[in-house]
Amino acid sequence: MDPAHRVTLEAAAETIRHRTYWSPFPEHPRAYGGDGGAAFDALRDRRFELGQPGADGWTGGEISPYGFPLGIEYAHHDPDVLLPAMRAALPAWRAAGPLTRALTCVEILARINGRTAQFAHAVMHTTGQAYPMALQAGGSHAQDRALEALAYAYAEQTRVPGAATWEKPQGRRGTARLDLEFTPVPRGIALLIGCHTFPTWNGYPGLFASLATGNPVLVKPHPGAVLPLALTVRVARETLAEAGFDPNLVCLAPEYPGEGSARDLAVRPEVRIIDYTGSSAFGDWLETTARQAAVFTEKAGVNTVLIDSTAAYRGMLTNLAFSLTLYSGQMCTTPQNLLIPRDGIATDEGHKTHEQVVGDLAAAVTALLSDEKRAAGLLGALVDDRVADRLAAAAEAGDVLLASRALTHPEYPAATVRTPLIVAARDRAAALREWFGPISFVVPVDSAEDALTLLRRTIRDHGAMTVLGHTTSPEVEAGLVAACLDECAQLSLNLTGPVHVNQTAAFADLHGSGGNPAANAALVDGAYITPRFRTVEVRRGA
Amino acid sequence: MDPAHRVTLEAAAETIRHRTYWSPFPEHPRAYGGDGGAAFDALRDRRFELGQPGADGWTGGEISPYGFPLGIEYAHHDPDVLLPAMRAALPAWRAAGPLTRALTCVEILARINGRTAQFAHAVMHTTGQAYPMALQAGGSHAQDRALEALAYAYAEQTRVPGAATWEKPQGRRGTARLDLEFTPVPRGIALLIGCHTFPTWNGYPGLFASLATGNPVLVKPHPGAVLPLALTVRVARETLAEAGFDPNLVCLAPEYPGEGSARDLAVRPEVRIIDYTGSSAFGDWLETTARQAAVFTEKAGVNTVLIDSTAAYRGMLTNLAFSLTLYSGQMCTTPQNLLIPRDGIATDEGHKTHEQVVGDLAAAVTALLSDEKRAAGLLGALVDDRVADRLAAAAEAGDVLLASRALTHPEYPAATVRTPLIVAARDRAAALREWFGPISFVVPVDSAEDALTLLRRTIRDHGAMTVLGHTTSPEVEAGLVAACLDECAQLSLNLTGPVHVNQTAAFADLHGSGGNPAANAALVDGAYITPRFRTVEVRRGA
Repeated sequence: MDPAHRVTLEAAAETIRHRTYWSPFPEHPRAYGGDGGAAFDALRDRRFELGQPGADGWTGGEISPYGFPLGIEYAHHDPDVLLPAMRAALPAWRAAGPLTRALTCVEILARINGRTAQFAHAVMHTTGQAYPMALQAGGSHAQDRALEALAYAYAEQTRVPGAATWEKPQGRRGTARLDLEFTPVPRGIALLIGCHTFPTWNGYPGLFASLATGNPVLVKPHPGAVLPLALTVRVARETLAEAGFDPNLVCLAPEYPGEGSARDLAVRPEVRIIDYTGSSAFGDWLETTARQAAVFTEKAGVNTVLIDSTAAYRGMLTNLAFSLTLYSGQMCTTPQNLLIPRDGIATDEGHKTHEQVVGDLAAAVTALLSDEKRAAGLLGALVDDRVADRLAAAAEAGDVLLASRALTHPEYPAATVRTPLIVAARDRAAALREWFGPISFVVPVDSAEDALTLLRRTIRDHGAMTVLGHTTSPEVEAGLVAACLDECAQLSLNLTGPVHVNQTAAFADLHGSGGNPAANAALVDGAYITPRFRTVEVRRGA
Repeated sequence: MDPAHRVTLEAAAETIRHRTYWSPFPEHPRAYGGDGGAAFDALRDRRFELGQPGADGWTGGEISPYGFPLGIEYAHHDPDVLLPAMRAALPAWRAAGPLTRALTCVEILARINGRTAQFAHAVMHTTGQAYPMALQAGGSHAQDRALEALAYAYAEQTRVPGAATWEKPQGRRGTARLDLEFTPVPRGIALLIGCHTFPTWNGYPGLFASLATGNPVLVKPHPGAVLPLALTVRVARETLAEAGFDPNLVCLAPEYPGEGSARDLAVRPEVRIIDYTGSSAFGDWLETTARQAAVFTEKAGVNTVLIDSTAAYRGMLTNLAFSLTLYSGQMCTTPQNLLIPRDGIATDEGHKTHEQVVGDLAAAVTALLSDEKRAAGLLGALVDDRVADRLAAAAEAGDVLLASRALTHPEYPAATVRTPLIVAARDRAAALREWFGPISFVVPVDSAEDALTLLRRTIRDHGAMTVLGHTTSPEVEAGLVAACLDECAQLSLNLTGPVHVNQTAAFADLHGSGGNPAANAALVDGAYITPRFRTVEVRRGA
C-alpha cells in the first residue's frame, strides 16, 4: 500500500486535534482529469455487477433529476445469504487491527478520489446537484468527511495500547505481574441507509467509521441515488480483495421498487450498527425499534437565522442569499426561518426597516440568479416532485415576499429548476416544521428577547442542524450562545464572507450536535465512533 | 485548590494510555489515620443532614449485615423541587469548563480519601464486606475508579480544542478566516442508581464521569446501602460549595420503604443519563424504557472458568479458592461455572482426574478457611437473606461436592457467614443462570471443544463479566481468545499468583466489556464517557 497513506492518516488525526484548515483532496474541478462524463455514460443502460453472494434478481429505476433514466440495474440479494457471508468476513478484518484497517480505508478513498469526476456525474444525476457542487460536496468534501471519520476511528481504537505489562509492587511479596493485551472488537454488521440528496457526503462518515472499527458494512442506498454508493461499494470491494480481505466486508443492498427493505434489515439480529439520514418519522422509528443496534440518525430540523444587527449589511445579504439558493435549499443545513425585528435593524448603512431588510434580501437573491446559466449552476434541479409540491403549498402559508420562479436549465430542459421562495409566515406555527427545499419564512419578532425565546423553542421542539446569527450587540450574541449551549445547536455568527452557514469543513467543523431533535449524532466526534466497537482485554499471568 | 491535583489528573490520564500500575490512593489500612469506627458511630442513631431543597419527610432503615440497625434517617425529597434546583445549577458548572470540573472532582476525591477509614466502616456495615475489603474495594479502589472515570472525562472533553482559528487559502480571493469555539455541553441531569454490594466501587465511575462532563448527578442509593453514598454526596456538596458552585450539582434521593422511586425518576424528562448496577430485569427495563436518557447498565451474568491444563496446579487451586471465597462470592466478577474435563487434566504434578481436581479445589477452599477469624475476614457477611436462600436452593440443584458451612463471626455473632458451596450441576440448564453468592457449579465437559462451545453459548445467552482459563495448550488458549473476542468478554488466563479473576485494577484493566448481556458498558472506556456530553461549536466570521 502507498506509504503516503500513513502520512495522510496522521495528518488527519493531527488536524482533528487542532481544527485548522486541511484537506488532501483538492476541490477544484481541474484537479480531476479524465472524462468523467464518458465514464458515467459507460455505466448507463446496463447491469452494474458487484459479484456479491445471494443474488436473487435485478432492480433499478433511477431517473436523473435532469430528466432522463439512468437505465442501470443492480443485483438484489437475499439477506439470508448475504448477511452470513458478510459476518464470515469479520474475524480476519478484526484481526488485521486498527492501523491496517485505517490504511486500507485510506486506499479505498484514494481510489475514489482518483475517480472523482465520474462520481461527480453520478451524484449530479441522482441528486440534482449542479456539477460543480456534485464534484465538491459529493466528491472531495465527502472524501474529507470519510477520512475524518476513519481517522477518528483509528484514534479512538488506539487510545488503549495493543499490549502492556502491568507490574504492581507488593512489598515483601515481590511484584505482581500481568501481560495485558487489548483488542478492539467490532459490534457486528453495520447498515448504512443512504439518502437521496447527499448519498456520499452523508453516507461516507458512517460507512468508514464502521468499516475502520472492524464492522462489515451493508449499504442500502436510497432507490433514487444508488449509483454513487454502488460505485463506492465496487471500489471498496476491489481494494479489500487486493489487500487480501474478503470483499464481502462491504456489500450493496438495493431494494425492489416499493420493497422498503430498510425496515426489515434494520431489525435483523446480525445488524448491530445503523447509520441513517432522512425523515424524522423513520429515524425515530429506527431509534425506538432497532434496539439491537447502535443507531446514528440525521433527521429533519428547522434552521433559524436571527438578524439583529450587522456591521456588514451588503455582505450579510449576499452571504444569506447564497445560502438560500445553493442546491435549491435542499440541504439539511439550509436556513429556513428568518427572524427579523418588526422595528428593523441597525446596520453599517444606517437603520433598515423590517420591510427594507426583507426587500434587500429578496433583491440579493434575484441579483444572484440574474444570469440563467449561473443560476442553474447554483440551484441544480429539484430532487423529486415533492419539493415542487412543497413550494406550492408554502406559497399558500402566508404572503409571498419573493416568488419562486421556474427556470429552464440551459443544458437539461427537462430538469425542474426553481428559484427560492420567501414567505411572510401567516403564523409561527406554519414556520415551525421543516419545509425541505428552496423555502424560507420571514418571522417578524418584537425584540431580541422574543427572537431568542422562539429560537430556543424551535431547537428544543423541532431540532436544528444550523443556527445563524447576525448581531453587533454583545448582549444579543451572548444570548445566542447561551441558547445554543442550552439547546445544543451549532451556531454561526456574522457570516458575511465566503463561508456559508450551510457548509461545514471536515477536520474543523462539527455537522449537527447530536443533542437536539434534528440528529442524535454529530459528524464527527468521539460519540460517533466509540459505540461502534468494544475493547476486549486478555490478561495473562506471567 | 491543591496544585498537586493537576499532577494527579495528568498522571491518571497518562496511565490510562499506558496501562501500567499506578494509584495515588494507598490500599494499606495503616495509610489511613483517625478512628474510622468512632467516626462511623458518630453518624448512627441520628438524622443525616444534607440541606437539599424540597425535603418532604424522613426515611431510613439500613441494617448492618453484621447484625444491628444503623439507626440513621435521611431526608426524602420531592423531585418536582429537587430536579429543577439541580437543573438550575448546570449553566455555571458547564461554564467552568473541563479542567476546573476535573480538578474540583479530584478535590472531592481527595477529601473522600482523607475519610477512607470512616467510609470503610460505612461500606462494611451496609454491604457485609469484611473491613479490609471495605477499605480497599469500597475505599481506595473505588477512589481509583472514580479518578479513572473523571480523567477519561477530562480527556474526552479536551480532544477538541477550546478555540481555533480556521484559515482556508482561496487563491486570488485571499483567505477565508473563522474563529471557532468549542464547548462541551452536558446532557442534563444524571441519575445514579446504586447497588447494595458495592455502593462506592460501582457507583463512583458513573457519578464522576457525569459530574466531570458537566451534568448534575442525582444519587438514588440502594435502600440497604445509603450511608456510603450519603457521605459521598455530603463531601461533594461541601467541596462544590467551597469552590463557588451550587452544591445542588450533587444530591441524594433516598426512597421511602417500598417506594421504588428509581422507576419514576428514570423516566423523568430532566434525567438524561442513567447509571445502574443490579438485576437484569430492571436493567433491561431501563434500557428499553428510559429512552430519553443514555443508559449505562451492569447486570447479571454467568462467569465461567475453563480448566484445561496447568503448569502450576497448586497456584491454580489456591488462586481459584480465594476467588470463590472473597466476600462470599457476592461479586459480579466471581466465577460460577467450573468447566472441568471428564477425563481430567494435565498438570505440573502429573495427570489429575476430574474427581481429583474437584476434590483438591474443595480442599483448597477448606484450607483457606481453616482459621475462623481469617475466614470471617475473607468471607464477610451475606448481604441479605436471599443469598442464604439461594445457597439452600443450589444445594438441591445437584450433588454437593463441598457443602457450605455456617460460621460464627468472632466479633459479630448475629452476622450470617457462609462458606462456599460447590455443586456438581445435575444438568447444564441449572448452571446457565446467575446464582449470586458463594455458589459454584462443576460442569463436566467432554473436551476443550465442548467447553468452548458451552462458554460461547453461556456468554452469548447469559452474559459474563469475567472468563478465566487455565491451559498450557496454545490451541486451547487460541480457542479461548477467539471465543472471548467473538462474544466480547474479558478473559484472564493462568492466574496462579496474587491477582484474581474477580479483581480489576483501575487505569489498566477494563471491568466488563459492554458487548455481552452482562453489561452494556465497560469501566472505563471512551464509550462510557462520550455519550454524556455533546460539543457545541460557535464559529464567528472574522
